[in-house]
Amino acid sequence: MKIVVVGGVAGGMSAAARARRLDEQAEIVVLERGEHVSFANCGLPYYVSGEIQDRAKLLVQTPESLKAALDLDVRVRHEVTAVDPEAKTVTVQTPGGSLSLDYDALVLSPGASALRPPLPGLDSPRVRTLRTVEDALDMRETVEAGARHAVVLGGGFIGLEAAEALNMQGLEVTVVELAEHVLPPLEAEVAYPVTCELRRLGITVRSGVAAESVEPGDAQDTVVLADGSRLPADLVVLSVGVRPDTKIYEDAGIACERGAIVVDDHGRTSVPGIWAVGDAVLSTDAATGVKRPVALAGPANRAGRQVADDILRPESARPIPAAVGTAIVRVGELTAAMTGANRASLASAGIEHHTMHLHPNNHAGYFPGATQVHLLVHFDDDGRLLGAQVTGQEGVDKRIDVLATAIRAGMTVGDLIDLDLAYAPPYGSAKDPLNFAGMLGSNVLDRTVPLWFADDLEQRLQDSLVLDVRQPGELEVERIPGALNIPHTELRDRLDEVRQAAGDKPVRVLCRSGVRSAIAHRVLAQAGFDSASLSGGMLTLLDTLGDRAPEVLEMNQ
Amino acid sequence: MKIVVVGGVAGGMSAAARARRLDEQAEIVVLERGEHVSFANCGLPYYVSGEIQDRAKLLVQTPESLKAALDLDVRVRHEVTAVDPEAKTVTVQTPGGSLSLDYDALVLSPGASALRPPLPGLDSPRVRTLRTVEDALDMRETVEAGARHAVVLGGGFIGLEAAEALNMQGLEVTVVELAEHVLPPLEAEVAYPVTCELRRLGITVRSGVAAESVEPGDAQDTVVLADGSRLPADLVVLSVGVRPDTKIYEDAGIACERGAIVVDDHGRTSVPGIWAVGDAVLSTDAATGVKRPVALAGPANRAGRQVADDILRPESARPIPAAVGTAIVRVGELTAAMTGANRASLASAGIEHHTMHLHPNNHAGYFPGATQVHLLVHFDDDGRLLGAQVTGQEGVDKRIDVLATAIRAGMTVGDLIDLDLAYAPPYGSAKDPLNFAGMLGSNVLDRTVPLWFADDLEQRLQDSLVLDVRQPGELEVERIPGALNIPHTELRDRLDEVRQAAGDKPVRVLCRSGVRSAIAHRVLAQAGFDSASLSGGMLTLLDTLGDRAPEVLEMNQ
Repeated sequence: MKIVVVGGVAGGMSAAARARRLDEQAEIVVLERGEHVSFANCGLPYYVSGEIQDRAKLLVQTPESLKAALDLDVRVRHEVTAVDPEAKTVTVQTPGGSLSLDYDALVLSPGASALRPPLPGLDSPRVRTLRTVEDALDMRETVEAGARHAVVLGGGFIGLEAAEALNMQGLEVTVVELAEHVLPPLEAEVAYPVTCELRRLGITVRSGVAAESVEPGDAQDTVVLADGSRLPADLVVLSVGVRPDTKIYEDAGIACERGAIVVDDHGRTSVPGIWAVGDAVLSTDAATGVKRPVALAGPANRAGRQVADDILRPESARPIPAAVGTAIVRVGELTAAMTGANRASLASAGIEHHTMHLHPNNHAGYFPGATQVHLLVHFDDDGRLLGAQVTGQEGVDKRIDVLATAIRAGMTVGDLIDLDLAYAPPYGSAKDPLNFAGMLGSNVLDRTVPLWFADDLEQRLQDSLVLDVRQPGELEVERIPGALNIPHTELRDRLDEVRQAAGDKPVRVLCRSGVRSAIAHRVLAQAGFDSASLSGGMLTLLDTLGDRAPEVLEMNQ
Repeated sequence: MKIVVVGGVAGGMSAAARARRLDEQAEIVVLERGEHVSFANCGLPYYVSGEIQDRAKLLVQTPESLKAALDLDVRVRHEVTAVDPEAKTVTVQTPGGSLSLDYDALVLSPGASALRPPLPGLDSPRVRTLRTVEDALDMRETVEAGARHAVVLGGGFIGLEAAEALNMQGLEVTVVELAEHVLPPLEAEVAYPVTCELRRLGITVRSGVAAESVEPGDAQDTVVLADGSRLPADLVVLSVGVRPDTKIYEDAGIACERGAIVVDDHGRTSVPGIWAVGDAVLSTDAATGVKRPVALAGPANRAGRQVADDILRPESARPIPAAVGTAIVRVGELTAAMTGANRASLASAGIEHHTMHLHPNNHAGYFPGATQVHLLVHFDDDGRLLGAQVTGQEGVDKRIDVLATAIRAGMTVGDLIDLDLAYAPPYGSAKDPLNFAGMLGSNVLDRTVPLWFADDLEQRLQDSLVLDVRQPGELEVERIPGALNIPHTELRDRLDEVRQAAGDKPVRVLCRSGVRSAIAHRVLAQAGFDSASLSGGMLTLLDTLGDRAPEVLEMNQ
């Protein structure tokens, strides 16, 4: 058995390593077009920042270490340029010329390249990507040579990691994001705290505006935006997305859709004897069923292993699951994470859903150092969990991992009530934030607590009585003009005031985080009012309004 | 509807609060025999330690705040002394005398009392428990008055929290634990690092020995152990377990077993109109099906809420789930946690199982600050997850929570492969420790990687060739006398040496953590050897041998 693997990072290398562990006799050749295999691609921004000091740390394995441990024939600077599925051969461009290799099984893990939009000036040498070890070495060299101004084109996960890295190195950094907010996969109200944290770090955020061109200069380049802004740049980081590297495979007759390789749930392509994994393949989204490429290291690694199983022991190979798609990023002292589907993907898949926001403490409030976990959860009418997003300072990764597990397990939002999560005061609460999410979700589904949403505030101020049940002292920080204030502790005795103010109109209640307004809603509902509780309270309202908050609210800050 | 709730902490208060949110008209009375309701019982050790400075933080709610927010009639120093299920009344001892209250629904959440073993001298005023706010206030006062020596009787979760608290206050602390190791619910090899951490903090651990008596003295008491040791004590903390407080309910004809109240999966007792929750009831263990009391705050809180649903909207009340039983404790810089069943409970339930140990990094090894997560997982022959234990410095709570969720969902160990957990270098790895656990578990189940266990080392040295595949430099730290050393990177070329040394005997391989020995096993198995890989490698071996390691191994330290 001769197995040829194209691509020596993540999926490809996992396939090769697993293949060897299953079969000592197989001939296993790994072809990598770059300089390095098995490098720490997710670690590159942290080398640029200086947090990873030693470049050697980026090289997790070398061809030599892989030969010694796993008897793999790993060849770097070997680029596959053609596949002949009939002859079962690949053509490889090497430093010493072209050669042909035959295979019994071919595993494609070519990855994706940085997307290069058609902007004038992108060929300037000051415009870089951050995809390879060489990119990272070059970027840190540029930084250490005294670069002062950087512009990051693209405010996605990798763009923000790059921006923070350069900021840590003392550069003045501007992030330019075409979408309305950074981290476009997150909902706007979840992303807003990230924008605030970037600003706190001293990073300038320009979202909702396109870059038009890069004007090369002698001392500096200039990035020109659609609104006419001109940003000086010693360094431009291009991070607007990736595109699967599949042209030669499409040319070889392997079925592709929208540029990505089509595979079945064992990683098999349309051509017998050829498998594919990683950023270059179409995955099925677990929440929506939609097919899309998922450029994440974890699923790629695991699919590589499963493809090796399918090649060498197909009778017992585990299927590659649909993609839940979990992502996380550190931005300063904040962590932002998401799993499953977001509003946009649910809308485009036509999936009706409920959304709720919560802001419980990471751990028991009475234990020092408690910070809030900001949670957003989408679920359908049967309660099935569709997606979740979490930000906060501590405990974010834990909650997103549990939610990702719950989504994978097909749990409902109500099932979150029953999770026996670890509780001692330094770690959680007797009712963990996720238990709370389950309780609120159940209340939403059975209409014990109907929600209203911050996006609709201005409309509700027209057609409803907006009732703020916070204590008067809290209103001194910010208040909604036109809202009636009755603290929830006085509500039972002051229902007449509500009745008088509301007249025929519904009552829309809010508090700071949504806990007290839910209690108040119950009082009102049982007193006969058409009432609802603001999802996530004033905290979510402020994040939803974002920079518009001072226009809409009366604020003392 | 008149609802009487007995017990104003955790389960009881959750039931009362939920009942009010469901029914504004109900009369809801909460009877608490102590001074306080809704206090931070899990926070008491952290008040003793001084981490929680302000005693007011321990009082999460007061009767006044509960009246204002939820219109609850909360009465402290009200102890129920009898129940008449026929008349539907309870007799209550109050500061002003005895009274009788009638009810439509009665919720029992009486909790449990500290177990007081029949030791002479336990009535000394220097012997304390740590169950109430008053206990914590007294204990901190004793500490601040200059207590220097403390003995903690019982090395369970609460005992260790108390020991660490007193150690932080500068006392010389000895923990006495009758079982062979502290944290008896953990396996010995998982608990050993906890013992080491206690010692590092300067706490003396005396396990495997009984306390025989407390001899009161003028200046100090003396705790006498079964081996004749005499421990001076200005303070003795009694923490050997709890016993449900159920006598009066048993007297009232409510079915109990082994002192705990029997309930169905809606919290209903054997007597119509009476529900029970919390430490005083029997729960069904999710892993073993065995009935046992579960003294945990989280399940009690949630069951209280579910009982309120069953009283007020029985048609849609969610059943109370079987108990997974997750627990966590901070000890110095270490966190130890468990979920589901342990070896002892599986053995007593007669459930055959596999066990594996892993020591992956908490996050990417190339990112600064990576520490190991020590994982133990039990699963059955169908792969069903039964229990797990985790220790380490970082990321322990996250992994135990995901495992608790996976157990709740009925996942198999192989399903852990498919978890899309959040990965960026500060948070995890492309293959998370739990993905690794899934991969190893699958390998164990299909015999791709059979394991052998540290407990059997001395036997294996007799009947097998023990093959250490670590690099020579690693053996300078500790080595197994009689083991053959061939680094895994040289194994393919040196199989003849293995053949010669093994003769007819099986080969039992080990490395540091179990990763390289699994690779070596695959080489050996495919070369025809009867081979197996040591579960958890030298790291688990050292934790299994514990203090005996220097007797069994050659160690340079």
